[in-house]
Amino acid sequence: MIVQLQENILANDLQTICEHIQSIDYQTSRVKTQRGDYIVAIGKKEFDIRKIGGLNGVKDIHRVSDTYKLVSKKWKVDSTYIDLGDGVTIGNELTIIAGPCSIEGEEQVRKTIDHLRQHNVRIMRGGVFKPRTSPYSFQGMGLDGLKMWSQIARENNIKIISEILAVDQIEKMHEYVDIFQVGARNSQNFTLLHELGKVDKPVMLKRGISGTLDELLHSAEYIFSNGNERLILCERGIRTFEKAYRNTLDLNAVPILKEKSHLPVIVDPSHGIGVRRFVKDMALAGLAAGANGVIIEIHEQPQKAISDAQQTIDFRNSTVLIEQLHKMHALLKSF
Amino acid sequence: MIVQLQENILANDLQTICEHIQSIDYQTSRVKTQRGDYIVAIGKKEFDIRKIGGLNGVKDIHRVSDTYKLVSKKWKVDSTYIDLGDGVTIGNELTIIAGPCSIEGEEQVRKTIDHLRQHNVRIMRGGVFKPRTSPYSFQGMGLDGLKMWSQIARENNIKIISEILAVDQIEKMHEYVDIFQVGARNSQNFTLLHELGKVDKPVMLKRGISGTLDELLHSAEYIFSNGNERLILCERGIRTFEKAYRNTLDLNAVPILKEKSHLPVIVDPSHGIGVRRFVKDMALAGLAAGANGVIIEIHEQPQKAISDAQQTIDFRNSTVLIEQLHKMHALLKSF
Amino acid sequence: MIVQLQENILANDLQTICEHIQSIDYQTSRVKTQRGDYIVAIGKKEFDIRKIGGLNGVKDIHRVSDTYKLVSKKWKVDSTYIDLGDGVTIGNELTIIAGPCSIEGEEQVRKTIDHLRQHNVRIMRGGVFKPRTSPYSFQGMGLDGLKMWSQIARENNIKIISEILAVDQIEKMHEYVDIFQVGARNSQNFTLLHELGKVDKPVMLKRGISGTLDELLHSAEYIFSNGNERLILCERGIRTFEKAYRNTLDLNAVPILKEKSHLPVIVDPSHGIGVRRFVKDMALAGLAAGANGVIIEIHEQPQKAISDAQQTIDFRNSTVLIEQLHKMHALLKSF
Amino acid sequence: MIVQLQENILANDLQTICEHIQSIDYQTSRVKTQRGDYIVAIGKKEFDIRKIGGLNGVKDIHRVSDTYKLVSKKWKVDSTYIDLGDGVTIGNELTIIAGPCSIEGEEQVRKTIDHLRQHNVRIMRGGVFKPRTSPYSFQGMGLDGLKMWSQIARENNIKIISEILAVDQIEKMHEYVDIFQVGARNSQNFTLLHELGKVDKPVMLKRGISGTLDELLHSAEYIFSNGNERLILCERGIRTFEKAYRNTLDLNAVPILKEKSHLPVIVDPSHGIGVRRFVKDMALAGLAAGANGVIIEIHEQPQKAISDAQQTIDFRNSTVLIEQLHKMHALLKSF
Repeated sequence: MIVQLQENILANDLQTICEHIQSIDYQTSRVKTQRGDYIVAIGKKEFDIRKIGGLNGVKDIHRVSDTYKLVSKKWKVDSTYIDLGDGVTIGNELTIIAGPCSIEGEEQVRKTIDHLRQHNVRIMRGGVFKPRTSPYSFQGMGLDGLKMWSQIARENNIKIISEILAVDQIEKMHEYVDIFQVGARNSQNFTLLHELGKVDKPVMLKRGISGTLDELLHSAEYIFSNGNERLILCERGIRTFEKAYRNTLDLNAVPILKEKSHLPVIVDPSHGIGVRRFVKDMALAGLAAGANGVIIEIHEQPQKAISDAQQTIDFRNSTVLIEQLHKMHALLKSF
Repeated sequence: MIVQLQENILANDLQTICEHIQSIDYQTSRVKTQRGDYIVAIGKKEFDIRKIGGLNGVKDIHRVSDTYKLVSKKWKVDSTYIDLGDGVTIGNELTIIAGPCSIEGEEQVRKTIDHLRQHNVRIMRGGVFKPRTSPYSFQGMGLDGLKMWSQIARENNIKIISEILAVDQIEKMHEYVDIFQVGARNSQNFTLLHELGKVDKPVMLKRGISGTLDELLHSAEYIFSNGNERLILCERGIRTFEKAYRNTLDLNAVPILKEKSHLPVIVDPSHGIGVRRFVKDMALAGLAAGANGVIIEIHEQPQKAISDAQQTIDFRNSTVLIEQLHKMHALLKSF
Repeated sequence: MIVQLQENILANDLQTICEHIQSIDYQTSRVKTQRGDYIVAIGKKEFDIRKIGGLNGVKDIHRVSDTYKLVSKKWKVDSTYIDLGDGVTIGNELTIIAGPCSIEGEEQVRKTIDHLRQHNVRIMRGGVFKPRTSPYSFQGMGLDGLKMWSQIARENNIKIISEILAVDQIEKMHEYVDIFQVGARNSQNFTLLHELGKVDKPVMLKRGISGTLDELLHSAEYIFSNGNERLILCERGIRTFEKAYRNTLDLNAVPILKEKSHLPVIVDPSHGIGVRRFVKDMALAGLAAGANGVIIEIHEQPQKAISDAQQTIDFRNSTVLIEQLHKMHALLKSF
Repeated sequence: MIVQLQENILANDLQTICEHIQSIDYQTSRVKTQRGDYIVAIGKKEFDIRKIGGLNGVKDIHRVSDTYKLVSKKWKVDSTYIDLGDGVTIGNELTIIAGPCSIEGEEQVRKTIDHLRQHNVRIMRGGVFKPRTSPYSFQGMGLDGLKMWSQIARENNIKIISEILAVDQIEKMHEYVDIFQVGARNSQNFTLLHELGKVDKPVMLKRGISGTLDELLHSAEYIFSNGNERLILCERGIRTFEKAYRNTLDLNAVPILKEKSHLPVIVDPSHGIGVRRFVKDMALAGLAAGANGVIIEIHEQPQKAISDAQQTIDFRNSTVLIEQLHKMHALLKSF
């Protein structure tokens, strides 16, 4: 059950509500986010929600049978839009996020931003802290790279998203990123999720390497229930037996997540197939399946990129893809 | 290596060619299909193919480094079109195949065909021999159902595709079907594949329940190398850990199969997600990923269908989907 | 529900029983096997089984809530033993089955049999019809190989098990094999299973390449319900994402199959890991998990075997393994 | 390449060694652990290692073709033993670790320790920080629980292992645990692994939920290369399609990890099958596959345990299992 509280609720009223809920053996959690003030109540008994709905200080009350609550569409039927400022939003229009696997240097950043601006892409991706299987691989440019990148992006009115690996990076990165990205390997790093709930920047949460959709939604609930409701879900491929490509992009996930949750869903075709010449097909398929947008890896010269770049497309192909995505989006809107 | 022979090759010339190939320790298989006469040669040595290419009776010669040969695009660069007669082809236009899970009776067949004709869908699917996990489940109407269905379909200029489960059904079904379908459970039933190579009707081969793309192509090679080159590949979802839907539709398979093989690729979104309200999204995504068409389960009243029908959509949704597929196809052609 | 009928039941009594069962909307199947005469009844209503239990001609009656019935332990609590004659049984003692991947010739057969006799192994495996992913691979020695092998085996009092790929091989192989093996690729070849139900030789059914345990039990039910109750289940590894070995031997399957079914369970460590130097460990682990025995691939010189032989151990290692299996079996019996 | 340095190497000698290695385009990492001082060098060129082996200050030099280096058996052929003090070691004798899923209170701790002492089990497991899919589930007793548990354990000469979820818990837990456990969900939490490299307590690293063995070894390399070589690997089941049990215990992993790495390998049958009545079979199978020991969940009254306890066995079954494990271990040692 989710009880949405009125703004500036009186302490007395709050106490009465909590006592009512606890009297039916429900455990309560108070959740204050950027947008609302809630009590999430977990329990098993059947009861008449109107009794609580009628109490002073209650704005709204909903039963939610899912074990995740605040991210469920059973509670919030309207889709969530995320406003990044400067006219950039996610969830109510086609979102294209593009950029390199790793931030490599100023020249690369400038060239990428030029390309994005040329195609009116407003959000740039890039890694500065890279989660690498081997401790001996390039681990990213780190905070200095992020500062450099962020400055150029802001001068050009471009928003940036970058992966965070650890709790102590929250404070360091906070000033410079517009969206925190939680990668597949940290999809159930509950400590990190918990702390990202206290942040006033949006978070894009990738599905685990073989995470279920149910786990993804519960991980999102970790962030939301700690106070941050500006969340984006991302399907990036799962691990299967097939060896003809890197991951199995699970587009079934798209309509299912859209039905279960009010959060926007982004598809990552670059990691989702891991072979650059097929990224375009899978990006279009992702939109057709109902995604709110895509995140793709681009580089002026993919073969020369520092990070393993089997999945990165060059600017020429990026240009073609962006144009096709807009046409596809227009068609889908007409359906 | 594939050596395409000239029509009416002289026995002497053939012998010379084979001796040449065997002299370099290649094993030869003669393959005669509806469309050509080939020698497939398997071996490891490097050699100058021009020596064989210049022999009498050789029309063409190709190296094929894949372990499947005749279904490889390395040999036959042009896409294969399959002509079913009466203006119905697969591979060069949008293919929509629709129909019920199981054929249930004359009324159902007539209603379905009326629906298909109304939307200019030319190929109807339907099961008469059903592969069922339990021996106690409904096993299909059998040959009598097929005969009834086939007659009505022909009267209405509709082609039919139906699943075959056993070698002894080939002869029985042959007169009545336009395309034989090999289901996921028989994807590596090599005896059945072998015998379908001798048939002069097209075969649609579904990927195994957890079959690799490599296995699918080798299974297709079984049929082709026994003489039948009118083949269609079908992606129908693979088995993964995810429980939020029935199968994981693997749309990565589409661009990869299209690159590796010259055969048409059809997507089955009905089994590929197994939840009827998401079939439309996945059908559109399948087209967007580059498929030549889709096969979908439809029924006037899905909830009343004899077979388990979680994946079957009703006629109203079928109407919407078919229209959207045509618009999507038109857009993709413009890219 | 399973109704076991008395021997020589009168036609009248049988009719009465069936009418009673059908009157409560249960569908009935008559099953006659080597060992019994049954009616399997499938339906949903609750009812008092004593009413049927008291009818003339009824020997026994059991509710079975599983969707498989005759292979369920809910019906038959005692483990099934399979008597192959000449003092060879499966299910009540340690079963070791050993032999080459493919039968290659008389010398190989004789050497293998000498090795088996030396270690008192009574059942030999070997393939004469090989299911091969590629149509161009060696397909086995066929029936002639089987006849040769069978003759030598009988002279030496050795039982043989060999894989069957197609219905028309049943008649051909019947005289020569002691156990029919159904391979992983045919685990849901329902036509083949159906026909093997009519055979009076035991059948060992391998789990599908990514078959569930539930599917394996239903496939066994296909054979049993067609009249053959002398069945053996075999765990041979499933397909997963891991690439460090061929298949993932699923030993969890062993205690679960033993709990769900009364049929003997054999583990195939050779295919289950696919790396010869680890076969011994996995064979021992299979026994420790509760299997009734193991089937292993052995060859005098594995590297020279015709078939791909990564999983085949040589005679020296086979000798060590057999001895260790006996010691392990003795220990486990003492628990 | 791994260069083991002599103790108290001179700065000059070290510089010469590094320059030599870098001159052939190898990247160097200095690694100082509890037991040694190394340079790990990564590069591609072929070269004569004797040139470096002969330099002053070099104790030993090894080529290691694996991409993990320090955990590889190619470098360190002898198995690693971990000495926990008070006569408790891991790697050279049978290791049994047992205890509850969650630490619940003093009485539970005392009863468990009594049980362990009775059976001479020296290491107790227990969770105080629980990684839970849902933010609303019980998250463990936390640090206070750990302190209480630790004190009782020390009074009874029992070592304890407990899961760590976050970097900031290292300092808090350090005084109280004898082994840090990294759970499946943090198996690629590289920040945590990195920091655990700086700790002077052993770490048991669980395989990821669908982690490959290669990833597990690289994660161990993260810890080792940051200075902590007292590592234990743990197989705890992987995620597959099978629904008849919780995870698929992958015992193939055992002989493979033992071959690839010098680190001890522990099997977790409790999570590996997730059904308490089969834990015994899988524990025995784990030993038979070659594991150095097992970690099992026990509770006086599993059904009353706070945490989900499908996999927890009671003391009576624990008693039987421990005795059988010792007998199995004795038999395996005799092989």
